[in-house]
Amino acid sequence: MNNRISEMVENIKDLLIEWRRDFHTYAEAGWVEFRTASLIASRLSTWGYEVRAGREVMDESTRMGVPGQAYLEEQFDRALQQGADTEWVSQLRFGFTGVVGTLDTGRPGPTIGLRFDMDALDLQESSDDSHFPVKERFTSVNDRMMHACGHDAHMAIGLGIASLLAELKDSLNGKFKLIFQPAEEGVRGAKSMVEAGVVDDVDIFISQHIGLGAELGEFVCSDLGFLATTKLNVSFQGKAAHAGANPEEGKNALLAAATATLNMHAISPHSSGESRINVGVLHAGTGRNIIPNKAELQVETRGATTEINEYMYERMRKIVQAAGDMYEVETHIEEVGAAPTCTPSEHLVAVLRKKAKSVKGIQKITNTFTSGGSEDATYMMSRVKENGGQAAYVVFGTTLSAVHHNEKFDIDEEVIPLAVKTLVHCITQFDTPLVPSNRGE
Amino acid sequence: MNNRISEMVENIKDLLIEWRRDFHTYAEAGWVEFRTASLIASRLSTWGYEVRAGREVMDESTRMGVPGQAYLEEQFDRALQQGADTEWVSQLRFGFTGVVGTLDTGRPGPTIGLRFDMDALDLQESSDDSHFPVKERFTSVNDRMMHACGHDAHMAIGLGIASLLAELKDSLNGKFKLIFQPAEEGVRGAKSMVEAGVVDDVDIFISQHIGLGAELGEFVCSDLGFLATTKLNVSFQGKAAHAGANPEEGKNALLAAATATLNMHAISPHSSGESRINVGVLHAGTGRNIIPNKAELQVETRGATTEINEYMYERMRKIVQAAGDMYEVETHIEEVGAAPTCTPSEHLVAVLRKKAKSVKGIQKITNTFTSGGSEDATYMMSRVKENGGQAAYVVFGTTLSAVHHNEKFDIDEEVIPLAVKTLVHCITQFDTPLVPSNRGE
Amino acid sequence: MNNRISEMVENIKDLLIEWRRDFHTYAEAGWVEFRTASLIASRLSTWGYEVRAGREVMDESTRMGVPGQAYLEEQFDRALQQGADTEWVSQLRFGFTGVVGTLDTGRPGPTIGLRFDMDALDLQESSDDSHFPVKERFTSVNDRMMHACGHDAHMAIGLGIASLLAELKDSLNGKFKLIFQPAEEGVRGAKSMVEAGVVDDVDIFISQHIGLGAELGEFVCSDLGFLATTKLNVSFQGKAAHAGANPEEGKNALLAAATATLNMHAISPHSSGESRINVGVLHAGTGRNIIPNKAELQVETRGATTEINEYMYERMRKIVQAAGDMYEVETHIEEVGAAPTCTPSEHLVAVLRKKAKSVKGIQKITNTFTSGGSEDATYMMSRVKENGGQAAYVVFGTTLSAVHHNEKFDIDEEVIPLAVKTLVHCITQFDTPLVPSNRGE
Amino acid sequence: MNNRISEMVENIKDLLIEWRRDFHTYAEAGWVEFRTASLIASRLSTWGYEVRAGREVMDESTRMGVPGQAYLEEQFDRALQQGADTEWVSQLRFGFTGVVGTLDTGRPGPTIGLRFDMDALDLQESSDDSHFPVKERFTSVNDRMMHACGHDAHMAIGLGIASLLAELKDSLNGKFKLIFQPAEEGVRGAKSMVEAGVVDDVDIFISQHIGLGAELGEFVCSDLGFLATTKLNVSFQGKAAHAGANPEEGKNALLAAATATLNMHAISPHSSGESRINVGVLHAGTGRNIIPNKAELQVETRGATTEINEYMYERMRKIVQAAGDMYEVETHIEEVGAAPTCTPSEHLVAVLRKKAKSVKGIQKITNTFTSGGSEDATYMMSRVKENGGQAAYVVFGTTLSAVHHNEKFDIDEEVIPLAVKTLVHCITQFDTPLVPSNRGE
Repeated sequence: MNNRISEMVENIKDLLIEWRRDFHTYAEAGWVEFRTASLIASRLSTWGYEVRAGREVMDESTRMGVPGQAYLEEQFDRALQQGADTEWVSQLRFGFTGVVGTLDTGRPGPTIGLRFDMDALDLQESSDDSHFPVKERFTSVNDRMMHACGHDAHMAIGLGIASLLAELKDSLNGKFKLIFQPAEEGVRGAKSMVEAGVVDDVDIFISQHIGLGAELGEFVCSDLGFLATTKLNVSFQGKAAHAGANPEEGKNALLAAATATLNMHAISPHSSGESRINVGVLHAGTGRNIIPNKAELQVETRGATTEINEYMYERMRKIVQAAGDMYEVETHIEEVGAAPTCTPSEHLVAVLRKKAKSVKGIQKITNTFTSGGSEDATYMMSRVKENGGQAAYVVFGTTLSAVHHNEKFDIDEEVIPLAVKTLVHCITQFDTPLVPSNRGE
Repeated sequence: MNNRISEMVENIKDLLIEWRRDFHTYAEAGWVEFRTASLIASRLSTWGYEVRAGREVMDESTRMGVPGQAYLEEQFDRALQQGADTEWVSQLRFGFTGVVGTLDTGRPGPTIGLRFDMDALDLQESSDDSHFPVKERFTSVNDRMMHACGHDAHMAIGLGIASLLAELKDSLNGKFKLIFQPAEEGVRGAKSMVEAGVVDDVDIFISQHIGLGAELGEFVCSDLGFLATTKLNVSFQGKAAHAGANPEEGKNALLAAATATLNMHAISPHSSGESRINVGVLHAGTGRNIIPNKAELQVETRGATTEINEYMYERMRKIVQAAGDMYEVETHIEEVGAAPTCTPSEHLVAVLRKKAKSVKGIQKITNTFTSGGSEDATYMMSRVKENGGQAAYVVFGTTLSAVHHNEKFDIDEEVIPLAVKTLVHCITQFDTPLVPSNRGE
Repeated sequence: MNNRISEMVENIKDLLIEWRRDFHTYAEAGWVEFRTASLIASRLSTWGYEVRAGREVMDESTRMGVPGQAYLEEQFDRALQQGADTEWVSQLRFGFTGVVGTLDTGRPGPTIGLRFDMDALDLQESSDDSHFPVKERFTSVNDRMMHACGHDAHMAIGLGIASLLAELKDSLNGKFKLIFQPAEEGVRGAKSMVEAGVVDDVDIFISQHIGLGAELGEFVCSDLGFLATTKLNVSFQGKAAHAGANPEEGKNALLAAATATLNMHAISPHSSGESRINVGVLHAGTGRNIIPNKAELQVETRGATTEINEYMYERMRKIVQAAGDMYEVETHIEEVGAAPTCTPSEHLVAVLRKKAKSVKGIQKITNTFTSGGSEDATYMMSRVKENGGQAAYVVFGTTLSAVHHNEKFDIDEEVIPLAVKTLVHCITQFDTPLVPSNRGE
Repeated sequence: MNNRISEMVENIKDLLIEWRRDFHTYAEAGWVEFRTASLIASRLSTWGYEVRAGREVMDESTRMGVPGQAYLEEQFDRALQQGADTEWVSQLRFGFTGVVGTLDTGRPGPTIGLRFDMDALDLQESSDDSHFPVKERFTSVNDRMMHACGHDAHMAIGLGIASLLAELKDSLNGKFKLIFQPAEEGVRGAKSMVEAGVVDDVDIFISQHIGLGAELGEFVCSDLGFLATTKLNVSFQGKAAHAGANPEEGKNALLAAATATLNMHAISPHSSGESRINVGVLHAGTGRNIIPNKAELQVETRGATTEINEYMYERMRKIVQAAGDMYEVETHIEEVGAAPTCTPSEHLVAVLRKKAKSVKGIQKITNTFTSGGSEDATYMMSRVKENGGQAAYVVFGTTLSAVHHNEKFDIDEEVIPLAVKTLVHCITQFDTPLVPSNRGE
């Protein structure tokens, strides 16, 4: 069967690259993946998947960092103009851009879930001639939106897998659930899909990423977890006053914010493991001669465990509140993103490593990758594990033209067919059972 | 003669208001008063003044806070389209927007200098129906430029005085020098004109302002000085790094800026008089998960004396430098505005008070006004006093619809003819000599 | 009478100096002036004054910065051994060391109050041979207690005046109230005597000081007020933890104190006049490797007016509380001293200046002195003025060997007889009435 | 031979306890272990060891945190009075309190080094009846010096081992080097002995500790390292000024120190492993109304690796320097203690675990202990490993009455004979070679 899969992948290779470049051209940021998601839904449906999208697969209240209504609508219109699938797109309106396609073989077997993220970054793509997408004319047409983290390739991989599974359906068992998630950047989208129950019936869950410092042909199947994280917007609202004439009447939001920032960075490290905090952005004040009445911070906390992240969050919260009190300034903290930590399942990791070994093109199987970034697939992994299932996070190496999140980021597209082949092989070959024998189906 | 002046003012009252509203309509911010200044130069010239403009009356290197070339050129084009006087405007190009008109009576006598400021604020004018300029259709046509501090009226007053003096020329002695200064907001323009020598031959110098909390009919002729001030832009240039993956590699410009800000505000007060510092604006960072590599501050210092202001400046400078060193971050301080302190000349103040008393419409003569703002006319006052001359700063009260620098700021235009009448009366009536007898002419 | 006073002073000159040196030898710090006060009470009583002391002239609850009971008792024993007057000292026990002597002439007339402060500083006197008290063998026998601010001379002046008034009684009118106050250093003692009502019947109140930068023969009779002030001890109580093993368990009192300190110094200045804050002492922590669980600060606020001082106090209070909350640390603020501001009465100042002019030895009458220090005589001045009386604060210049509060501070003792003569002259000569005619007696 | 060792230990058990209690009674802090070290030298010498002490085994310039000369001399006198061995003590004068005894069997074999620390803590021992040393009358006679970390027992163990080895000499091979080190608390003493070369010829090095949270009968033989650490005293020297009268003249050392402290705690964590910093003590200022001219900090840095500790140190250094510059204050950093990190040698750890298993009384062999404290035995371990030798750090559990460094700290003395027995067994039994076969001798 290995050979058959290889052959099938070879046949759709051009299509895979075409898909990737189309997604790249119409890059859409988190929560506005209207065109992207509607086309995915349409294709999955065509291939015989049962497709659910929008509010069916997203819990409204646990979406995080969703832009304002006006912007959502403006982007919705843009997507329509850029060829969104009109049959599906209305379900996605107002930032409900998740899509889940399920292929039921009708035969007993585990439910295997795969997750692909769809959003681009808020980044202006390079127009330099040396940038491959410039040469090949598929740079992003959307201002300050760019696929600079490989999600365009992830979706191509997802569609590739979907089409192969559809074709192989009669020789497969169990169910396959392909989850296309919005707003991974800023860890904003996964929680909402989990809360909507999309992984509740999943026995085996695999999330994947390309690049991350690994080389082409390298398959990273780690047993290490991600740092838990919370993303926050903090605002301080004080009172303006003329800095020369009556400084005592001001309530200085900038000094409150500066004090909060310094003291947040001075939070004691935690003896149980890594902790991080960053005030990445601070904007305050309206004029040189005015006591600043406003300050806004973009903050993130991280921890080796969810508990450590909560410790950082709780200390941060107290510091913000107190810094506000110190300057008689109102404070507000808004959570705009979050992800727990989650360690991959040992058994599943072992199985995937073993299976991947036999895939042609996989030259090296390793354990760690350059990360430190956050990943909200951990919400899905955690839920699956809580329900007794298994979860893993794998990386397919590829040659990068620049680091992730850089305006000149690009990949070696060979990773796309390789990832499709490897993942299909891993989830369809039953000499090594994915599910350990002590778990009934 | 008092009656004659009153009559003359009455005759040009409509014109005064027309001028003011035209300046208001085509409000131009500091250093881009191309249309405004060119029209003033043109009128002064028509009335027989010897007019000098541009580089002749401005020292290039001591202009402060001048915008970039591209913006200057863009605004120059705008001014051309809005009816700038083509004969004069080319001299003003690239931000040399000062104009000086001299009327030489040919008879011995003191040189009397008057200064009028021309720039609008970076403020979007209200479009509310309750706003008088909306009703009368003379709101600013220029985006984010608005005369909300009365400089439009100042220029109308200046032109009114100019026309009267021209008409009265044969009955006057000495010289009259009318100085139209750009970029008073942010105290950026006066120094450059002083350095070009425009007040070096002035014996009597008077600067004036309208409003400032005084009521219509009130003439404020104070013997109090302004706070000296310096306006600064401070930048910190560090090094970005991923806040989760390798925080130790970042050079945190935001923490440097926050530390600098707190410690600037903690500078010891000075026992010799008032001191002030304000970090009015702080922008730092590029993303939530990136160690911030950039921070920019808008700062001002003030002092009851120039020495105290220098003490504040020097302490500020050390703090910025050290905060940079603390985080291994490059720092840069750019001076974008400055004004010394200056106390009015006692004798001149006394004379002006006495003369104003006899002007019809002046109902109250007072000593102090609501200020705390800065004023770079003090550069001119200081230079005149250094040369042995006398200087004063007077305020004409008027009813305000909103405080200075507010988007709904407006005035009672009656103040314009009243100010013209009073000032012409003060500088032309010789029963009380403006120059004390111990100073030769 | 001027001559008679001069003669009388001449006669007691040696005694005045003897008294001063005795007080200097047995210097006693604030609240433990047991020997000093008991001897003063005894002498006043001998001279026919009605003497009240201890709880009769001090309100217990408004004493500030009183040491602990054990220390008070230890010092009480010391005073007994050093010759305290056994008849009076028991009334003074436990830190009630105020003494008031009243001389009632029996004739109608104003009640004139004079205030003298009695406490020494917590300072080790120099044992250097160049120090005059060393040479003349009257250095302090009490460890870390030294009269380095001239209060020893103040008391000699007070006793001198007392003895003269007693002698002159039959030719005088009204009442004379001599108030000997403890604990002026740290502005701790005056409030308590005011609250006990000791100046409630005073029509004319004069407080005096020697030195303060004025030269011998200079009489400073100012119409300027002192800065209002509050003295505070601030403590932070956190939780210790091993800094290497479990830093997250500590509640860091030192970081709370450092944050409070920086932000206190960054309180906005007040547009109505001078403001000051100083964290003069900070002690925190118990060991290098322990998260500090304790911090103690000595703080003072000042203001040109009582309102400005209250503004500083209130801001300080909020900052301390918030810094505690920020680190989950308990805070406590104890007020250990305070003085309001008070401007001398114009009329009284004018009269005193006029009267002093005719005193032989007074060579110069001036208006200002080097101060910036605080003075709780303002409590008495304020109360007298509130009741419709008049108050002044005068300074007698003298040559100093070192600045006030220095271990080598010493004075030219000639100031003592001169001050006695001048003050007696001022309060007994009725050619210029001290009380303006529109105030009945 | 196991039995013979057990028997020998049983015979000296009372002596071991007597030694420990004697050391406990005459507790001596770091660098003043004059009595302790002289008695040890004397005993080793008596048993036939070649003994070197003082400058022979200590490099003068790399001793850290040595007290001032006057204190050293005062303590030297105290030690003489408390029975220091007069033959040896003079070599130890001025803080050269290290002792090394070498037993050369004359037969080929490895040189085995054992290290024992001798210093007490600066702690006042409890006088509470519940405290065992109170009941048994061996509490410390020296004020603020107490063995509250078990070094008294360490020395008893060292002497016990020394006496056994001497007795067993004829049946042993190689050399045994017993190193008695001063000033382990504050990690001040080891470096100096290493620099003097005392471990340069050591093939196998073992350091040991008792307690640390392990229970009696537990033998902890870890392959984990300690955190590297540096201990620092930081001082700021500014300029005093009166806080009310002329605050601008002060150079505020307290604000410099507070700023340094906050920013030190805000140093970015390091992605390669744990990092720590603590400002444990801060003393600043001389009086409430004086701008503080002095501040002193006790600081420590730590890191999972020596490189991370150096990163923390270097950041700390820059922050201190910059905080000084910010307030125009002189800064000085004195290194008063340091220890690198060091991981035990895998082979040696494995061998010791295996050998210990057969010792009667050892009930449990474990891998980790509660630490987080620092340990400068790592200097010795590092040097031995650099030279190709092997090093380990072992812990003997014992029941504690209170945590380490507590005034009621006490141990179950049964640990002493057990440790002697175990260590002698480990270093003398050659069925499992301590030295791997690929290292020739």
